[in-house]
Amino acid sequence: MSRAWLLPEQIADVLPSQARRVEELRRTLIDRARGYGFELVMPPLVEHLESLLSGTGQELDLKTFKLVDQLSGRTIGLRADTTPQVARIDAHLLNREGVARLAYCGPVLHARADSALASRELLQFGAEVYGHAGLEADLEVIDLALDALGSAGVREVLLDLGDARVLRALLAGAPLGAEHLTDLAQALARKDAAALAGLSGPLATESREGLAALLRLHGGAEVIGAARKQLPARASISRALDDLGWLAEHVQRAHPDVRIGFDLADLSGYAYYSGPRFALYAAGNPAALARGGRYDEVGAVFGRNRPAVGFSLDVRELAAVAPAQPAHAAVRAPWGESAALRSAVRVLREQGHTVVCTLPGHEHEAQEYDCDRELVEVDGRWVLRAL
Amino acid sequence: MSRAWLLPEQIADVLPSQARRVEELRRTLIDRARGYGFELVMPPLVEHLESLLSGTGQELDLKTFKLVDQLSGRTIGLRADTTPQVARIDAHLLNREGVARLAYCGPVLHARADSALASRELLQFGAEVYGHAGLEADLEVIDLALDALGSAGVREVLLDLGDARVLRALLAGAPLGAEHLTDLAQALARKDAAALAGLSGPLATESREGLAALLRLHGGAEVIGAARKQLPARASISRALDDLGWLAEHVQRAHPDVRIGFDLADLSGYAYYSGPRFALYAAGNPAALARGGRYDEVGAVFGRNRPAVGFSLDVRELAAVAPAQPAHAAVRAPWGESAALRSAVRVLREQGHTVVCTLPGHEHEAQEYDCDRELVEVDGRWVLRAL
Repeated sequence: MSRAWLLPEQIADVLPSQARRVEELRRTLIDRARGYGFELVMPPLVEHLESLLSGTGQELDLKTFKLVDQLSGRTIGLRADTTPQVARIDAHLLNREGVARLAYCGPVLHARADSALASRELLQFGAEVYGHAGLEADLEVIDLALDALGSAGVREVLLDLGDARVLRALLAGAPLGAEHLTDLAQALARKDAAALAGLSGPLATESREGLAALLRLHGGAEVIGAARKQLPARASISRALDDLGWLAEHVQRAHPDVRIGFDLADLSGYAYYSGPRFALYAAGNPAALARGGRYDEVGAVFGRNRPAVGFSLDVRELAAVAPAQPAHAAVRAPWGESAALRSAVRVLREQGHTVVCTLPGHEHEAQEYDCDRELVEVDGRWVLRAL
Repeated sequence: MSRAWLLPEQIADVLPSQARRVEELRRTLIDRARGYGFELVMPPLVEHLESLLSGTGQELDLKTFKLVDQLSGRTIGLRADTTPQVARIDAHLLNREGVARLAYCGPVLHARADSALASRELLQFGAEVYGHAGLEADLEVIDLALDALGSAGVREVLLDLGDARVLRALLAGAPLGAEHLTDLAQALARKDAAALAGLSGPLATESREGLAALLRLHGGAEVIGAARKQLPARASISRALDDLGWLAEHVQRAHPDVRIGFDLADLSGYAYYSGPRFALYAAGNPAALARGGRYDEVGAVFGRNRPAVGFSLDVRELAAVAPAQPAHAAVRAPWGESAALRSAVRVLREQGHTVVCTLPGHEHEAQEYDCDRELVEVDGRWVLRAL
């Protein structure tokens, strides 16, 4: 016997009970997004590398599997994130003047996983609003993300808000290379004060102190006020803080049960965010279940720099966290050539029932489906009987 | 402006109207399979090459994109067909003694397309029965495949039946290399008599004449009788013809509208078939919409050689052939902070309606959704009004 059944590391099959849950959740999420007017699109799994990675930063590059297209000899990438593809569709294919709401749900693969325990294959669901620069679009996206978790049965949700403009303002004009900036962002994400102090050496005092303050600027509603005092009084920082306050107030009104926090140092996820950003957590789960925000510059490489805001989540991870649903009950039927039996089976299936025909010779096997009724012949008629 | 929006050849986005159709069809197919007791599984998009390609023949190898896994340095393949993966799941993960019915629906990619016009990305749906060697399983799979096309709205379906054992019997013991066999199968598939005659040179007279006869053995019910006369009287050929007759009779009884034909030279699709095989065609569409059959030997490489029969189809292609469905109607609502408005929107969405909120400043844009009603305030209450 060979070892041909061994899968690559951090790659797994989804077996029936979990697959059923993932499929149900997938439908719920797509239908929720449709309820807001988001239209479904299906970008391809592979694209030329420069389309997949333009303007998205080094992290996404390292996560993307590369392969050679035999038809062209060019390098193509297996998508590690769907957002840049949807921005391309908005910019080039739909080319609408007004607002476009697009949703997607499909697999993405990571050449390197997000963590040692994370899967390298995700079923990414996401929704994006293009063409509206106002906070109403940010609010709509957060609303949908909260509804998505709610309809999956996740309770006790924490919404964490931040804004990419704060760090941008602190680093504006600083003579730092790309690698230096990445290290700095990582030190912030890890809340590593010593590393941050070392890396902020070349910066002006005001920026250095601002970066150090970011490490403390996480918590409840008091963070906004504290940030106004502790961060430099620059217009873009002030606007970012106003926007976060507005969003928190409006989200709380529509979702009174959601806990809202702020973390001005959280920079996890991809480098393309350009304004307010958010993460959703479920109680007892350390990793964010959904992430999103504004990324007004992603479409530029496709020739159209539209305002954009969206979020995404991994349906498989959400299915693992969400409460399990009861199995679909089924009807057991014998196998037979009788036209009456075959017709009874067909009618039940058309009514939406699962009817498992026991194949000849397998009468005494355990059924994998939870059969709670059986089709039996009584006085020449096929009827259902409880098991 | 860059050309970053150009996709690789024979790779395309699926835009909203078509994506909606594909998604609806996907759900219908999975639900149909569930109605028969098929359980959904989700094998990974990538696997070690030897698992993906074991026992599947050269054609699948040429179609499979290969890449290097950074974590192990090993070559992994992006699946071009899901069937061998599902056989692996049956053999290794479920490891059931009795019958297992498994279904799947996910993307597959082809490094080389099936034809110059075909897409290289398919959404493959399929269903497989493991553990039953009798024809009842073949019949169930054909039944489901016909139901699948029926529920997609495809009318005037042709079922074409063949059997891999016929060619195997004719070539049994022949001293031909793999490449020679491939050429021979291609000559048969193209019905190229001259090429076939050349390639059958090294064979015994009986086999040579049998191969030549295969080219004529396609048509209606008369093919079975003609094959009994024109093909050598070997036990496995005779059994194959009996089985095809039984299947045709039973399928016709359950599906009186389906036209049934036979083509004993059709060997399209993958090399793993080992018994009865079938293809489904829709009137006016030259390419098969679904293909399936028995492939009892696929699980062997995973240490468990179970009887297996199944079929697969491309949901995207089926969606392109199936009649279009009307668009989902929607409600237009203004954007506003009023709690009464927000609550009215929320209630409508929970009832399953699509409510598109017009973002501020976009009041005069065309709606992409077909809005047939509008939410308006009348005497302090939000009510629906026809548009």
